[in-house]
Parts: sequence; structure tokens; C-alpha cells
Amino acid sequence: MNKKIPVAILGANGSVGQRFIQLLEGHPWFEVRCLTGSDRSIGKPYKETCHWILPEKMPDAVRNMVIKENEAAGKECVVAFSAMPADQAKAVEPLLAAQGLAVVSNASAHRMDADVPILLPEVNPEHTALVNIQTANKKQKGFIVTNPNCTSTGLTVSLKPLLDTFGIKQVIAVSLQALSGAGYPGVASLDIIDNVVPFIKGEEEKVESEPLKMLGCFVQNQIQKANFVISAHTNRVAVTDGHTVCVSIKCDSSIKPEDAVEVMRSYQCPEISRELPSSPWPVIQVMDEVDRPQPRLDRAVGNGMTTIVGRVRVDPIMGLKYVVLSHNTIRGAAGGAIYNAELLVQQKLVG
Amino acid sequence: MNKKIPVAILGANGSVGQRFIQLLEGHPWFEVRCLTGSDRSIGKPYKETCHWILPEKMPDAVRNMVIKENEAAGKECVVAFSAMPADQAKAVEPLLAAQGLAVVSNASAHRMDADVPILLPEVNPEHTALVNIQTANKKQKGFIVTNPNCTSTGLTVSLKPLLDTFGIKQVIAVSLQALSGAGYPGVASLDIIDNVVPFIKGEEEKVESEPLKMLGCFVQNQIQKANFVISAHTNRVAVTDGHTVCVSIKCDSSIKPEDAVEVMRSYQCPEISRELPSSPWPVIQVMDEVDRPQPRLDRAVGNGMTTIVGRVRVDPIMGLKYVVLSHNTIRGAAGGAIYNAELLVQQKLVG
Amino acid sequence: MNKKIPVAILGANGSVGQRFIQLLEGHPWFEVRCLTGSDRSIGKPYKETCHWILPEKMPDAVRNMVIKENEAAGKECVVAFSAMPADQAKAVEPLLAAQGLAVVSNASAHRMDADVPILLPEVNPEHTALVNIQTANKKQKGFIVTNPNCTSTGLTVSLKPLLDTFGIKQVIAVSLQALSGAGYPGVASLDIIDNVVPFIKGEEEKVESEPLKMLGCFVQNQIQKANFVISAHTNRVAVTDGHTVCVSIKCDSSIKPEDAVEVMRSYQCPEISRELPSSPWPVIQVMDEVDRPQPRLDRAVGNGMTTIVGRVRVDPIMGLKYVVLSHNTIRGAAGGAIYNAELLVQQKLVG
Amino acid sequence: MNKKIPVAILGANGSVGQRFIQLLEGHPWFEVRCLTGSDRSIGKPYKETCHWILPEKMPDAVRNMVIKENEAAGKECVVAFSAMPADQAKAVEPLLAAQGLAVVSNASAHRMDADVPILLPEVNPEHTALVNIQTANKKQKGFIVTNPNCTSTGLTVSLKPLLDTFGIKQVIAVSLQALSGAGYPGVASLDIIDNVVPFIKGEEEKVESEPLKMLGCFVQNQIQKANFVISAHTNRVAVTDGHTVCVSIKCDSSIKPEDAVEVMRSYQCPEISRELPSSPWPVIQVMDEVDRPQPRLDRAVGNGMTTIVGRVRVDPIMGLKYVVLSHNTIRGAAGGAIYNAELLVQQKLVG
Repeated sequence: MNKKIPVAILGANGSVGQRFIQLLEGHPWFEVRCLTGSDRSIGKPYKETCHWILPEKMPDAVRNMVIKENEAAGKECVVAFSAMPADQAKAVEPLLAAQGLAVVSNASAHRMDADVPILLPEVNPEHTALVNIQTANKKQKGFIVTNPNCTSTGLTVSLKPLLDTFGIKQVIAVSLQALSGAGYPGVASLDIIDNVVPFIKGEEEKVESEPLKMLGCFVQNQIQKANFVISAHTNRVAVTDGHTVCVSIKCDSSIKPEDAVEVMRSYQCPEISRELPSSPWPVIQVMDEVDRPQPRLDRAVGNGMTTIVGRVRVDPIMGLKYVVLSHNTIRGAAGGAIYNAELLVQQKLVG
Repeated sequence: MNKKIPVAILGANGSVGQRFIQLLEGHPWFEVRCLTGSDRSIGKPYKETCHWILPEKMPDAVRNMVIKENEAAGKECVVAFSAMPADQAKAVEPLLAAQGLAVVSNASAHRMDADVPILLPEVNPEHTALVNIQTANKKQKGFIVTNPNCTSTGLTVSLKPLLDTFGIKQVIAVSLQALSGAGYPGVASLDIIDNVVPFIKGEEEKVESEPLKMLGCFVQNQIQKANFVISAHTNRVAVTDGHTVCVSIKCDSSIKPEDAVEVMRSYQCPEISRELPSSPWPVIQVMDEVDRPQPRLDRAVGNGMTTIVGRVRVDPIMGLKYVVLSHNTIRGAAGGAIYNAELLVQQKLVG
Repeated sequence: MNKKIPVAILGANGSVGQRFIQLLEGHPWFEVRCLTGSDRSIGKPYKETCHWILPEKMPDAVRNMVIKENEAAGKECVVAFSAMPADQAKAVEPLLAAQGLAVVSNASAHRMDADVPILLPEVNPEHTALVNIQTANKKQKGFIVTNPNCTSTGLTVSLKPLLDTFGIKQVIAVSLQALSGAGYPGVASLDIIDNVVPFIKGEEEKVESEPLKMLGCFVQNQIQKANFVISAHTNRVAVTDGHTVCVSIKCDSSIKPEDAVEVMRSYQCPEISRELPSSPWPVIQVMDEVDRPQPRLDRAVGNGMTTIVGRVRVDPIMGLKYVVLSHNTIRGAAGGAIYNAELLVQQKLVG
Repeated sequence: MNKKIPVAILGANGSVGQRFIQLLEGHPWFEVRCLTGSDRSIGKPYKETCHWILPEKMPDAVRNMVIKENEAAGKECVVAFSAMPADQAKAVEPLLAAQGLAVVSNASAHRMDADVPILLPEVNPEHTALVNIQTANKKQKGFIVTNPNCTSTGLTVSLKPLLDTFGIKQVIAVSLQALSGAGYPGVASLDIIDNVVPFIKGEEEKVESEPLKMLGCFVQNQIQKANFVISAHTNRVAVTDGHTVCVSIKCDSSIKPEDAVEVMRSYQCPEISRELPSSPWPVIQVMDEVDRPQPRLDRAVGNGMTTIVGRVRVDPIMGLKYVVLSHNTIRGAAGGAIYNAELLVQQKLVG
């Protein structure tokens, strides 16, 4: 792989767009060649259109890159990372796929389309089989793949080894979500200082459906969803990064906490996704301390790609309960999408 | 009731002790006559020993009141409001009861004693029947009554009308708790800024047991606990006052959200506790707004004595889910204890 | 005063508009008759257009009031309280004044106009003399009066007794300002959690000029500005309400801290503004505690109308330093404007 | 330098002690060999005595290291980094110096001793000349050097180029300080959520004196303090790390902001301290953005060792004003002390 793969970032000015740029700086396989943005920003250098909100410095390589129209991505790039709002992504992503691009999207618009996979490479890399279905359906070379909603991410990774070993019947998930999940400017400060907001629009529906698709099987050219039920409560709290989820779970058979810990700790990536540049290590870290994980202390484990679990214990109703933490803008958004693109390269679906 | 009843506050320097003093200022029935505190503070005027942390001004009546030993309460007062830490309360409260005092305690030490009631006057005023059992058992005039842990408070009030009408099988409760619940200095700021702590020592055990005692029946001279199971996850968040709880509940029969709303909205205090000075009005407020209740906006409803419910909706697993908010240092601590004492007066068990 | 004076609130949906409505509920002299808002909200009931963000309940009297165009205020009301953004206020307020209204504005647009007073009734009630100049200049019955920027408010009240007694040469003021000063949604939560923003657009210019106009003298039909210099640093911090300002001040002669405390404590409102419904009591509260005032504990003193001072001590360079706190949306915005309108009534310039 | 220098950390359990351990992991010159702590922790492995509060993982090398008495440091180590509280440091540090150790202290206890330097290697490396005076005075091999208080640190670095080029007459410094500056548990969360505390015990005295010693000259075997006056206001705000200081400064001659920016940007470390392992690069970063520096975004510049300046502009009273930010637990505490020890090695006063 002598030459890097040229990539575009759609919606480069937003908070997820910025995170794509930051994480792709110095990436061994990908090189940012094209940034797109709103009509107002087109034609201007990135450093002027972007209100950069990350502690990491804006990479020099993008400072003077001129914002282009989304269509430009198709001419110059092979992969388009989409950080667009869902309503724009709905129309734009299929157009770019039709132009031949691999659209690796963080947007929710096409996640539940039958021929679009929602990917977590450490969980369901075989779901990229949908890509061939999709390109055949659409009679085109390009395609769309997605990563899940940021709250579903850590939850799904933590469920995978339990599902594999013990089977799952029911999951009740209550989230305490970070502010960066709402983008920028996102949540008004007056709404969250000394406060909790017990509602996030559209979020509970996503958490109750996306994990079932990801944990499903690819059979007869389609995804057969996992056969259990999730109930979600989603809350916003005064945390910058890192979604915490309290999980109560009923498995097919009775399960001891120490067995749950054992299967989570020993869970490994499928071989195809194990040694990619963004592969998490460990995939799941299970903490023993009674008051962990905590977002400020633990969100950066594994460069923000690891799923962190703690407080695994008996639930008197469901059988098992625990807490799971995941970095929502790294593993749950830009970092996850980059990991997806790496998987596509590894599988020779791109490049 | 021409003459006010003299009351003591045990542990007057702490955050709950301060709230007692603030709420009792100008109370129509009670008059603060005695403040007790640690050995270090005994003999000094309250204004010098207390690091007052409430926005409301320290009442003039207590500024120069000299801190005494706990024993002094027995000589001067009829009621002792206890804001002591559990470990001190364990030994001291029975001693004061033996001296003839009505000890109305916020401490957890004696809540689960068989002859000590945990009281919420809008829920189980008939549990004061245990007082007679207790005084007979101990062969003394004085006694101990308690209010529940602050997280159990709002949860239990919200469960009462559901239990009465629909029966309850299972409850999963996930809390987002305020800092004041940990007292002062309590939670270190570095532990909670940009953070969540998914653990509070001893709290889940309390939430899983206290509501069952309160929602139980007084039969054959004892409390028969309610016959359902509670599972709790308890979390600390960056909120000053107001505990939020996400509740998933399975009733005996299938239940529509609008029916749950109806029984919560129409729930009334039992007559004996309906028109006391601290009676909440309404007992339960059910909000229609999709993103409420929120602690900063709603904790002060009904002077902090009302239980606020919102987001009543279908739970795909348990049948029903909702959010409940309660002011933890008012309804959940000092205000609740004062309401308990008013009930005792109304029932002529005091005064 | 049997009949209440009908008043309008311009820009009723915003955070200051909401505070006007909340503070005017049950006002003895004024009655809200007209609410105005953006084109999008006109014709709709207030409860539908307003995202109410105050802990106090939305008054029933306004819930179904239909939002109107600004021009409607002139037909139905005598006073228009303006909570409009400065850019809109620039054009609209003169139009309403031309219709005969007393426009009592919180907007900055016309504060520095030569014939428009910036009023703090406890400081410069005599500046309403500009009203007659203004109506004569414009040949109309209506007029505009303003209250200062919220950071200038507490600072100016605290400077007044020092200026009167000791004279002032120089003031260095460094603010730590609350989020509500930026309106709603205002400051993004990601910009202020675990952060400080050391810049507020246009704020330093206002703090360096408005107090000089307010502390000036009305001579020869105009305001002669106070003859000293202010230097300001303005910062945004994670506080909901209450602006804190650190002040270093050089007086004409050397001044002892205890003398400064004495003149601030004994400062009284001019007689004309002393017993109005919104008059602060005390005007200035000087605290002795070494770590006060603090916004969360002290902003509500005097119903949010009192100016709170603390830490009065020697400054090794300027001679004197202290901390001043003022509630920015009550004394510094809506409450201040209402107090101004009361002064106009008392002086028979209105009603 | 084949063999690393063995170092001890005194007070290893506290927040600064932890930062020493984290920053010394993999240090090219120093190796942690000894940890000391309170009587209660002596004899136990570090992982059991330390409530680790850093996001970075506790280094494996110290997890099982057994906590020892302070005296043990003298037997095994050459350098002792002191993170002890001032009151303990007062007695213990001289004892260890008497044993022959180079005590590199973060404590304030001995900073103002005439023969103890307060060091910032990028500012005053020549002040280590006091070490020889000290060892001669005390007739011993060991000695104490200190780093300044964390608020003085960034302020002093920013003042140095201005003093060198323009001379300084007066400085007014108003701080907005992070919580980690108070150690752990430090500030109670209830004291700082939705709040500002305008007082930090002992802090203003330090900020008004320490910079003058550091910016003084070593003449005739002693430090002659810089000949200007500092006035400080110190405030605590809800920030985890990073002290922000608003500075107003009067120089000997009038000074343009662009000239101040120029001398700060081009300021270089003295050659002796320029290429040490912890040398900041750049020493001072001056930002052009109107709303920077901000602690959350900028505190990690130069691995937390750079001093960041912004908003350099005219002060209408003092001539010049600006904002300076410095990471208080890295540059302002443990990182600064390590840099001091590196300077001592470079100057062959250690090793």
C-alpha cells in the first residue's frame, strides 16, 4: 500500500467532521483530499469556515484546503466519510454512491435500509456482505455503509460475547449521554448546568433497533435481526465526551457475573478486523473497581476505541446488570467510521 | 395549638441539619429549641460552628443558639429531628427515645427495624401503628420513626397509585442523583465535573428494600412487605438538588400509559395527611412536555414536596416506563421528616 | 392607583422576555396586555411559541395570550418593556416611542444616545430629566429610557457611594459572568463545561463606558460623564445566574477598607426611588465572610435586586479592591427595567 | 548517562504525587525508586493506598511499590520530589536535605527562604546559584529548590520578556483557577457547581510575592527582588485543569500590543534550559483568536508545559492587558518540578 487512498469528509465543519480530520491526521492508509460543507462555506479555506472545538490542534494539512460541494468528492476520492446531518445525508449519500464512491457514513439516514449494513468491525464484519447485494441492486460500483448511533455502539459491543455464549432475551438500557453527541452548538449550556435532560429526540428508537440489526445474521442475502427486545431510556448529562449506559439483561439461561466478566474479557475481534490501524485493544476492558467506569477517567482507554465495562453483578429481576462506557465521538462516531473503512480496504471492497 | 412544640435538631451543622433549620423557620407547630452537634462544636454558638451552605439566609433565631450534647434534647424538647450520620444515629437515637422523645429521623440506621416505620404520609400514614408496638416492646414513652432514603422517596410515591390500581410485579429503577444527597463536603468536585459516578455506597440496597416496606401492609402488628421485586442502578451526576429516576415497571396486568397518568394525577393524600402544613400539593404532578421533568426547572414544584412524573410511555419489555423527580433534601430528607412529625401530631402520638 | 397601567413586552419569547413576564405577575402597578415576538410566532398563543426556561411556572395569564406585531403595543399599552436584540431594537424602539409609548428598554441600541438616559433608580433617578429633552427634540409624547448592561449594573451601584464620598480616578473591573447573560440558547454547553471563555463580544466596551454616563451629572440639559477611567476584562464562566466582578479602584484620596464598607453599607436610595415596588433592600449588602459573595448562595438577596459586595481590602497598587455580585437577569435586566418604569410612574412621566 | 538517577516522591498518594508518577513514567533521566506517604499508608502497596484520579493509567512500575517513611528516600535516592502539604514539608524537607538529598519541592513552605530558589528554568536558571550558598550555609551536601505556586507560574513566564524589554512598574492579576489546584478531595462539588468562589486561602499573598523573587537578580550572593508591585484577586471556577489569569500591566514606557506580542512570541529559553526533556516548546504561545486561550482547549499545548497568551490589547489605565493560561498540575506543579530537577542535572548540581 504505497499510495494512500484519497478520502473526502462530507460536512467537515461540524463536530464529527472535525473529529474525522483529527483522527485521519497521519493515518497510514487514508489521506484527506476533499472537504465539503454548506453553501455558505463553499469556496473558503477550512480555517476560516470551521469553528474548531477540539483540544487537538487543527492539522496544518487542512487549514488552507478550500471547502467544496459534495459532488466534488466523487471526482477526487475513493471513500467519502459522511458527517452530514441525517436530513442532508438522506439525499446526498445515494448520489455519491451512484458516482462510485464508498460512502462510509455516521448519519442515521440509511442505517435501517435493508441493503445497507450497520458495522462494528469487532462485532459483525461479515455484514459487509450486504455491500455486494447493494451494488447489484443499484447496478453501480459505489455503496453506503454506516456505523451505529453512538449510544448503541458500546452497548452492542458489550452484548456480543453475552449473546454468543449465553443467548439474550431482554435488555433494559438507560443512558447518561455526553454533550458532544448532540453536535455543536448542540445542547444549550442553560439546559444542562445543574441539570439533567431525560429525553433525546429519536435516540430511544435507535437504541431499541440498531443493535438488533448489528447482532443479526446474514442469511439468504439479508440480515435477519437478533431475536430479543431492548427497552431504552436516554438522558443527557453534563459530560463533554463518553456515553455511560446502565444495562439490565436477561439471558437465555441463568448466568453468573463472573462468567459474564470472563466472556467479555476474553472476547476478541474476528481475525479480519483484529489488526487494522483502528482496532481497539482490548476490545472490551472490564474494570474491577466498584465505582468505574467513569467518563472523565476511562473514555480514552484504547485511544477511545475500547468499550469499557464495570459493576458486573446480579440483577434480581433480569439476572445480570452492568455499566458500559464508550467514547461517543471516537468509537461511537468518526473513529468507528474510519475503522469501518479500514475493514472495507482489508476485505478489498475499497481500494 | 397556642403553644408551639419544642423540637431539637440532632446534627444541626450538616447539610440536612441546615435544611431542617431553614424549613422550620416560622413553622406553625414547631419551634427549634435545641441544636446538637459534634464534640468539637458543643458550647459554641451555631453561627460559629456551622458552614452554612444554603442560599436562604441563616435564621436569626438560631445564630446565637449554643450547640449542646445530644442528651440535652431530651430535657428540653418533645421531638428530636435527627440529621445524624447513620453510624452515630445507631446508638444515639434509641437513647433519646428511651428518654421519652419522639425521634423523627432521616438516618438509615433504624429504618429496617421491625418496629420502626418508614413513613411517607401521603403513602402509608397507617404505618405509625408501629409506634405503639415499639413503645410497648421497649416499655417506654419515646420512639423512633424514619423517612426513607432520598432516592426511594419519589420512586415510592409514584409507585403507590400504580400498586393500588394495577398491582406491581417488577420495577427497574435507574437513578441520576444530586450532589446534596451526599451531604457536605460530600462528593469532591474533581469527581463530578465533566463526569458521572455510576456507584453510590449502600444506595442500591436501600432502593431495593425500603419501598417494599413502605408499600407493605400493617397486619397482625407488623409490616408485611409488598410482594414485588425492585432492581436499582444508582448514579451520581453534576446536579445540586433533585434526584431523577428512570423507571421501568411490570404491573399485574397490562397497563396503558394514559391509565397510569390518570391514576397518578388523581392520587390524593389519605385524609389524615392531606392538610398538614407540609402536605404536598399536588401529591404527584404529571408533566406532558416530552423532555420533563428536569431537576433545575422542576425540583421546586410544591415547595419541593411534590413528586414530579413525566415521559409516561410503553416499555416494550416491562409494559410501562416513566421518569420521576423528587427534591432530595426537601421531600427526600428534612421536609419529609417534618411532614412525618406533623402526621404524628395530627394522630396525637406527639404533643 | 385603582387601575393598572397596561404594558407590552417586546421580544416576549426570549430569556429576558420570560423574566419580564415572571416578575410582572401580580405587579401592583402594571398589567401585561400585549406580547410581541418574531414573525414566526405572531398569531400563536404564547404557550406554543415560548420555550419557557425559568424554574418559576409560566403565569396562567399569558399562556393563551396571542403574540402580536410590535406595532400592536402602541395601540393597547402605555409602557413597552423591550427585551429585543439590539439590532432589532435599534429600529423598532424609536418607532414605538414615536407612537407615544414609554419604551423601557433592556437593549443596548440606544443607551449611548445623548438624550436617552441609562437609569439605575438607586443611583441616578435625576437622569430622567433627559426624557423631557428627548420628547422636545423629537416633538413627540413617547420616549426611550434604558437600563445598563448587566455587568455594569452591580459595578455602578457599588461605585456610587465611593464616588460621592471619596471621588474616583481609575477602576479595573474583571468579570466572571453567568450564562443567562447571553440569552437562550446562548452559550453552547461544549464551550463552557470544564472551561472559561475569556471574551464576550462588545461587553468590555459597554463596561468601560456605561457606568461613566450613569455616574455623570445632568447639567445644561445634558449628561456630563463622570471623569474617571474604567478598564474591563470580561469572562464567561459556568454559572447560570449572577455576575461576579473583581474591582480594583483608585480614589481621589487614600481610602481605608473600613471606610469604604461604611459608605457602601449606609448608602440609601434617593427618596424618589426608595419605596417603589422593586426598590432593593438593602441597596448594597456588604458581607464579612472571607469567601463571599458567591453567585449560587447570594444572587437572590433582596429578591435579586440587591447589590452584594465582599472582600473589601487594600489593593497595593490602586488603594482598594473588592468583589461585587449582582443578579444579571433580575437587577441587571428585567427587574431593573421594571424598577425604571416604576420610577417613571413615581415622577409622573408615565401614567 | 547510562544509568538513571533514582528519585523518590514524597506524598505520592495525593493529586500532585500522582502527577509526578505519571509524568516520570519513561523519563529518560529519572527512575522512581521510592514512594512515601502518611503513617496510615506506610507498608502497603501503592495500588492499595492511592485513590488514583488521573485519566492516564497508573504505571505498572509503581502498582506494587510499598509506601515508605520519608526517611527512606535519603537512603535510596539522589533526588526527592516533594508533593507534601506545606505544613509537613516545613519540617521534613530540611531533614532530607540534611541527609544529602536534592529536594525538589512543589510545596510553599520554603519558597521564600533567602537561600532557597524558586525556579522556572525558562526564566531564571541562574538562581540555582543559591544552591551553593545554601549548602555552604547549612554545611551539608543536600539542598532544597522549589517551583512557584501554580498561579504565579504562567503569570511569571509571561512577564519575563516584558520585563526584559520594557521594564515593569505594576501588575494587576485576576485569576480563574482550576479545581485540581486545591488537591484531592479539595473543593466540595456543592461549592462550585453553578458557582464561583472569589477566595483561595493564602493564594493572593503568593501571587503578589513569588514572581518578584523569580524575576529578581542574583547579586552579591542573594536574590534582589524585582522592583515592581503586583496586586492579585484569586477565584476558583468549575474547571478541572488550567489556570486562567487576566493581567493588566504598566510598563516603564508606553508599549504597543504588537510589540508585546512580538517579544513574547520570540522569547526563548536560556540555553542551559532549552533542550531538556521537559523544556516547553514553544515557551510562550500567543494566540490570535479573539476568544482564546481557553483551559479546556489550550491547557495541553506543549504537553502542558507551554505558557499560552491571548487577547493582548491596550489597557486604558495600565497600558497593556492580556490573558494567560497555564496547566496548573503540569507546568504549575509536577512537570515544573521535574523540569527543575533536569536543570540541576544539566548544571551538574545533581547526579
